[in-house]
Amino acid sequence: MSMSRTRGTGERLVVIGGDAAGMSAASQARRLNKPDELEIVAFERGNFTSYSACGIPYWVGGDVPDRDRLIARTPEEHRARDIDLRLRTEVTELDPDGQRVRTRDVDSGAESWTSYDKLVIATGARPIRPDLPGVDAPGVHGVQTLDDGQALLDTLARTPGRRAVVVGAGYIGVEMAEALINRGYEVTVVNRGSEPMSTLDPDMGRLVHEAMEGLGITMVNDAEVTGLLTDDDGRVRAVTTKDRDFPADVVVLGIGVRPETTLARAAGLPLGAHGGLLTDRSMRVRGHENIWAGGDCVEVLDLVSGQQRHIPLGTHANKHGQVIGTNAGGGYATFPGVVGTAVSKVCDLEIARTGLREKDAHRVGLRFETVTIESTSRAGYYPNSSPMTVKMLAEYRTGRLLGVQIVGREGAGKRVDIAAVALTAGMTAEQMTTLDLGYAPPFSPVWDPVLVAARKAAAKVRETS
Amino acid sequence: MSMSRTRGTGERLVVIGGDAAGMSAASQARRLNKPDELEIVAFERGNFTSYSACGIPYWVGGDVPDRDRLIARTPEEHRARDIDLRLRTEVTELDPDGQRVRTRDVDSGAESWTSYDKLVIATGARPIRPDLPGVDAPGVHGVQTLDDGQALLDTLARTPGRRAVVVGAGYIGVEMAEALINRGYEVTVVNRGSEPMSTLDPDMGRLVHEAMEGLGITMVNDAEVTGLLTDDDGRVRAVTTKDRDFPADVVVLGIGVRPETTLARAAGLPLGAHGGLLTDRSMRVRGHENIWAGGDCVEVLDLVSGQQRHIPLGTHANKHGQVIGTNAGGGYATFPGVVGTAVSKVCDLEIARTGLREKDAHRVGLRFETVTIESTSRAGYYPNSSPMTVKMLAEYRTGRLLGVQIVGREGAGKRVDIAAVALTAGMTAEQMTTLDLGYAPPFSPVWDPVLVAARKAAAKVRETS
Repeated sequence: MSMSRTRGTGERLVVIGGDAAGMSAASQARRLNKPDELEIVAFERGNFTSYSACGIPYWVGGDVPDRDRLIARTPEEHRARDIDLRLRTEVTELDPDGQRVRTRDVDSGAESWTSYDKLVIATGARPIRPDLPGVDAPGVHGVQTLDDGQALLDTLARTPGRRAVVVGAGYIGVEMAEALINRGYEVTVVNRGSEPMSTLDPDMGRLVHEAMEGLGITMVNDAEVTGLLTDDDGRVRAVTTKDRDFPADVVVLGIGVRPETTLARAAGLPLGAHGGLLTDRSMRVRGHENIWAGGDCVEVLDLVSGQQRHIPLGTHANKHGQVIGTNAGGGYATFPGVVGTAVSKVCDLEIARTGLREKDAHRVGLRFETVTIESTSRAGYYPNSSPMTVKMLAEYRTGRLLGVQIVGREGAGKRVDIAAVALTAGMTAEQMTTLDLGYAPPFSPVWDPVLVAARKAAAKVRETS
Repeated sequence: MSMSRTRGTGERLVVIGGDAAGMSAASQARRLNKPDELEIVAFERGNFTSYSACGIPYWVGGDVPDRDRLIARTPEEHRARDIDLRLRTEVTELDPDGQRVRTRDVDSGAESWTSYDKLVIATGARPIRPDLPGVDAPGVHGVQTLDDGQALLDTLARTPGRRAVVVGAGYIGVEMAEALINRGYEVTVVNRGSEPMSTLDPDMGRLVHEAMEGLGITMVNDAEVTGLLTDDDGRVRAVTTKDRDFPADVVVLGIGVRPETTLARAAGLPLGAHGGLLTDRSMRVRGHENIWAGGDCVEVLDLVSGQQRHIPLGTHANKHGQVIGTNAGGGYATFPGVVGTAVSKVCDLEIARTGLREKDAHRVGLRFETVTIESTSRAGYYPNSSPMTVKMLAEYRTGRLLGVQIVGREGAGKRVDIAAVALTAGMTAEQMTTLDLGYAPPFSPVWDPVLVAARKAAAKVRETS
């Protein structure tokens, strides 16, 4: 990302969406342009701006004491920076030819058109809400927005029962399982896949499964939810699958999200196979000189597979916003793509991945070797050294790193950054074996677990090539 | 590093030194060659093999309950792998032309010659023991070997006084300060430099200084030790500097080490400016086909400065041993060099560095920008988020990353690995701004502290170029 100031021409920048990508873009564009150079108008249909949706599980779980801690920048703070922020204002139509958007005041229903010179689409994602009987019953909650989080907390406060069922075992599912365990609930996670955390290969997901069971979470795999049963008051009382019912006083849906691109689709903007907007390296919507898009509503280039992916994650949304704001503000910045890094935890279990899983590599025609090693977070003799499992995929013949998955305790999660940087640099497993990583007994064994995996992967590549 | 099996010819490999580099080399050579293909003889003048000298402060401090936990592989284990290990046998002369070494039995004094086909020099380093009055008095201890550690523990056990003075404020100094604080001592660290941790720039060392004071350690900077005072029994009673005396019931010398290359020097082998053996990429001693050297007795190439350095560190010694054993065993492996990564802690303060300090960059003719940022280890709203200071150096104009220093609490130390890999890959600060690092609220702010530093460094490079 780079930027340089250019003089504005009294243009108007319109931003659709007041969370991470949209407001980062607005803020960065404002940094580069005075109000008389660039007017910035941002529309947000909800009540909040710039909040951390990723923090909701920790708020629900009680680690974060109140909602406002999750708000990085309030509407007032944005307005104080000369951003004309309009809350509770939904954009209902997008007219690229006319360079205008139609908005509707959520409260009054009043509609109007606003013209733009430059447009930023940051409409985010919407949770997948399966079309199941009972899915809208009281006691069934998503956890996508701050309002969702508050509604769930209200339900928890007034529901005497302590049985919680979480549907879905991805990041949101396992984080919500932790949150509910922390609140003293009896937690069952109902998972369609063969193991939790389908962002990992199943052999690594198995480790998460075992650890979750060890934490007292009941993990039900290979279970497709067929509906939700309600009691006489219409409140949810159980989650049903083909095989059995799971009694529930509260149900949390953590099934994932899809790009929110209804407006863009209607306006004929280019969408990818995952339903996300397609942009170029400058985050400009393909084929549109003056429209940028970023955050959870876009697809991003996976630098390892060379294909487009949809990865709804706050850290990408912030980077997109920074790049968009720089470009829309007259500077120059690019977002090269991602390598697919993600980290999560459930209680003290840390789960991390970057790059391709086995099935991703197969899908894009890559042949590879895999190795899995056990090591420890610190020197074996140092107190609180904990076991760590590292799986590594390296390309057949070239030995190029393709992906790493790590499951362990303290110190496991962020170790994936070593592999994320190596993937970005296109390193081979063999090159990784001599990486000069930080070593001292409280921090690592003398061979860091990632180096142990790299040594084994490099050896396997040599043997088979 | 790579390897391939080749058939041996009944040759003899002699290894001088039984710690990390030497025994890793011996073990790896044995893995590649059966005993009838390659005889391996290893000479060690002490009583131990393959132990973690880096772990000694934690043993002295009580975190590691006993000495044997620090031994990765015992003499018996090596012998069981068909390595002819001779303990308490000192090599006293090296004859490269005659391809032989002279040894002396430490106990009997008996000398003999042993011929070799291939030789590995892994003689390690020796502690700098300044030529000061009183330096050999009882109560004055180094902490280089397991025997040193035991001697210090014996002194601590029988000395009633609780005042400890540590001379030197590098890694060993601060780690020993922690060890002695943990044992309930009143600790004073006497440091010749302007701030502790001279492997950091002084502005970052200042943060270590403040944190050490906060832990109750008395930090005395700019203080050159002039001698040690003894009591009537000849025991140490104080450390003296030009300005004042520091009463001491026990004194620990942590002044650093020099390559132990007495034998090599006498044999006319090539030494560098730091007194270490000079090797090529295969860890072969320059100009000598059949002699390899590794570990604390060699100099290594700093990939950032392009110059030779002496970095005594177990993680390098192990890598060297692996490379040497592969090559001496008939395979192929190389050690490309280091970027100068190091990590340490004093109580809960984590200290990390990689690449060049300001003075290193000046010394090799690099012009650069520096930035220092404050961030947090986790999302600001997440419990136990702790402050972290990251300093970054990037080259003027090119923006190439030159170095990173980090001081903080939990999660600070190993973050330096991100920069270590980026340095190895030759990334610019600007390229680093879009690195796809692991993000979730318990692990990182939405912009990882290293990314925050990279953004600021990239901006500064743009402004000044």
